[in-house]
Amino acid sequence: MPYFDAASAAPLHPVARQALLASLDEGWADPARLYREGRRARLLLDAAREAAADAVGCRPDELVFTPSGTRALHDGIAGALAGRRRVGRHMAVSAVEHSAVLQSAAALEAAGGSFTEVPVDRTGRVAPGAYAAALRPDTALAALQSANHEVGTEQPVAEVAEECRAAGVPLLVDAAQSLGWGRVEGGWSLLTASAHKWGGPSGVGLLAVRKGVRFAAQGPADERESGRAPGFPDLPAIVAAAASLRAVRAEAAAEGARLRALVDRVRARVPELVRDVEVVGDPRRRLPHLVTFSCLYVDGESLLHALDRAGFSVSSGSSCTSSTLTPSHVLRAMGVLSEGNVRVSLPVGTAEEDVERFLEVLPGVVASVREQLGAPTETAAPAGEAAELVVDALGKRCPIPVIELAKAFPGVPVGGLVTVLSDDEAARLDVPAWCEMRGQEYVGEHSVEGGVAYTVRRLA
Amino acid sequence: MPYFDAASAAPLHPVARQALLASLDEGWADPARLYREGRRARLLLDAAREAAADAVGCRPDELVFTPSGTRALHDGIAGALAGRRRVGRHMAVSAVEHSAVLQSAAALEAAGGSFTEVPVDRTGRVAPGAYAAALRPDTALAALQSANHEVGTEQPVAEVAEECRAAGVPLLVDAAQSLGWGRVEGGWSLLTASAHKWGGPSGVGLLAVRKGVRFAAQGPADERESGRAPGFPDLPAIVAAAASLRAVRAEAAAEGARLRALVDRVRARVPELVRDVEVVGDPRRRLPHLVTFSCLYVDGESLLHALDRAGFSVSSGSSCTSSTLTPSHVLRAMGVLSEGNVRVSLPVGTAEEDVERFLEVLPGVVASVREQLGAPTETAAPAGEAAELVVDALGKRCPIPVIELAKAFPGVPVGGLVTVLSDDEAARLDVPAWCEMRGQEYVGEHSVEGGVAYTVRRLA
Repeated sequence: MPYFDAASAAPLHPVARQALLASLDEGWADPARLYREGRRARLLLDAAREAAADAVGCRPDELVFTPSGTRALHDGIAGALAGRRRVGRHMAVSAVEHSAVLQSAAALEAAGGSFTEVPVDRTGRVAPGAYAAALRPDTALAALQSANHEVGTEQPVAEVAEECRAAGVPLLVDAAQSLGWGRVEGGWSLLTASAHKWGGPSGVGLLAVRKGVRFAAQGPADERESGRAPGFPDLPAIVAAAASLRAVRAEAAAEGARLRALVDRVRARVPELVRDVEVVGDPRRRLPHLVTFSCLYVDGESLLHALDRAGFSVSSGSSCTSSTLTPSHVLRAMGVLSEGNVRVSLPVGTAEEDVERFLEVLPGVVASVREQLGAPTETAAPAGEAAELVVDALGKRCPIPVIELAKAFPGVPVGGLVTVLSDDEAARLDVPAWCEMRGQEYVGEHSVEGGVAYTVRRLA
Repeated sequence: MPYFDAASAAPLHPVARQALLASLDEGWADPARLYREGRRARLLLDAAREAAADAVGCRPDELVFTPSGTRALHDGIAGALAGRRRVGRHMAVSAVEHSAVLQSAAALEAAGGSFTEVPVDRTGRVAPGAYAAALRPDTALAALQSANHEVGTEQPVAEVAEECRAAGVPLLVDAAQSLGWGRVEGGWSLLTASAHKWGGPSGVGLLAVRKGVRFAAQGPADERESGRAPGFPDLPAIVAAAASLRAVRAEAAAEGARLRALVDRVRARVPELVRDVEVVGDPRRRLPHLVTFSCLYVDGESLLHALDRAGFSVSSGSSCTSSTLTPSHVLRAMGVLSEGNVRVSLPVGTAEEDVERFLEVLPGVVASVREQLGAPTETAAPAGEAAELVVDALGKRCPIPVIELAKAFPGVPVGGLVTVLSDDEAARLDVPAWCEMRGQEYVGEHSVEGGVAYTVRRLA
């Protein structure tokens, strides 16, 4: 039963399991205590810190362990912002950061600060120049992920770090998705990561703060982890996290190349096997193990369930699979199709035949979901006579508004207009994406009672 | 090699180990995902929540898992304070709470709020009436531990909860030390605990918030754990925590009685075996497994090291074993001797012969530390003639100032005064404690250049 959602959580690496078991016996005591069990725990903690710092590329005293990647981001951002509060209360972030970064920025705004979201191109990548333009005299902190968690696109961290250095702004890099594959290059100031993304146990994040970076830990004072991560450290998990990071790094070059080839195959074959698919993310500057595509006229939740029944565990950024009823903010920022979205992220050791089997299964699964939804078929209907048609899809959820649009479209001649009325957030993204995929013109949107009208001109 | 510091961290319970191993395989995936690995994780999480809620005595939807007891306290207090911010920004705490509570109160004060520390008696217990007197119209939250972590004294939680209810103030109970032994009775509003205190793994805390209690989670928004504990949950550890809580509870009555008898033996024998010892904490209303005593003329760190060499791992609230150079705030609030302080907290399953062996070893260890420090012997010197003596112990650390006091004391006649000059924080506690133990009169203190003068009158 292939599990293809490593970007969410990877199964425990055998080295992590072994280290965890060993340190359950050796590392349960308080490393702050003076007696032998405490000293033994301290040695394990020190060794784990050294191993993790070596993998990150920082000094051991620059790195602390946190209870998760999210907490590393929350606490790291809060500490860095407070440390430079005199400079100002503005933060720069890319539009495709992890929600923990964006929610930290929102919390800053709620507390009276402000933030700028740097846009990305259609591959999900920020331009260093655009990032530089977001830096202001009152910018306390900039944040940029090393690679995107939903589409795999690598960000130009070294170039942005150079822009930040020139502007005197510390750069925090969220390396959650990439740290298992290698160090983050460039002059970053703070770095965070999450162990369960590289096959370490859950319950461990990393926060590195370069010497000289102003940092004022927030929240009640606590002596643990240099005062930067309160609470008793989860030592067995920390030991397992450090050991598995070292292990995956040792395999990273070879395994990365192997998975990259499998992902290349998925990227190439999916559009050949399934019509009306958009493969998203940068085709070259990307994580080795991750590929994302979106399928027109498909409901993401139905697709996930059907793939699950077929034995494949994947993730989706479609609105109908989230609790918020909005498509993933990453897909929105990229301006790509969100419906029928599938993220495939291969764990270390994924077998080639599992990927081949996925490619065999996918076309039938997509076709059956489309059939259930009454998606339009490829046979072109003769052009209709109405100069303008209005499709009322109010109250209907993704992907129905786009299906209704596609079905109505043959009813107008070339040059004619079709307007879709929809109150589904996904339509804002998916109607223009449909135009792009179909070579039609997206005219624009305007408010109507109960929703939004999206207008498309037939070009072909 | 007996480990007697269960109040700091207990070795992993066999049931916790077994549950952890099983859920490493079954519970590594994201419980928020729809595919089978996610659903399996969700089932484990739900079952763990039900088991923990049953042990706490609350509804499952009132309980969330946090990364530690400290984080449960930090986040629980911050959320409860924010939830009642309109009422006011005052907090009531006992003077002997865990540092995570006191530091939360300090953070409230730093942010413009205020707090009242309710004093304790010499056994470490708050009086419900005194607690009630600390509640004000602007009190947003009251906090009281179920039992003290350093001396084992149980607090009158049910009575204080009643006072809080009458005043309309929610009561947060830190049950870290007691939850393994039983439910916290009484009408508390919030409750926190820490799994590694009952033999669960580190990395798991509990936060229960009763329905109807106003709560506004602080920090960046996050969907996990009802929005109250951000970050990917450490599911294997959570499963192990819940399973071991159930297991220790099943043994609690019998094991509690057995350990209570061992602790009674320590409480009775230590003062017989070692002269100039003060056993602290309530002799009856206390945790079953914990006993604390302080030894005059003894340096806590030397004592801990000597006991460690003899094979016993214990903890200490003496100033010289902490990084802050001040004695434990608990001993200070109780007004008891802090020098030569030893906390013995027996893990579940402690063998009787290990306790007997501790009692055999202790007198020699204390005697050798005293000898190294040149502590006064019992032979009474003839009374001297000087009506007043001044002992300059400036620059000398605990327990030297008290040793110097005791050595100088025979130099004055009954009615005479001895004044000790000291810049060691422990002297403020230990000079009066010495007077109490010796039946002499503590006259008072006043500032002098470079320190404080503590004056004692000879009564016998």
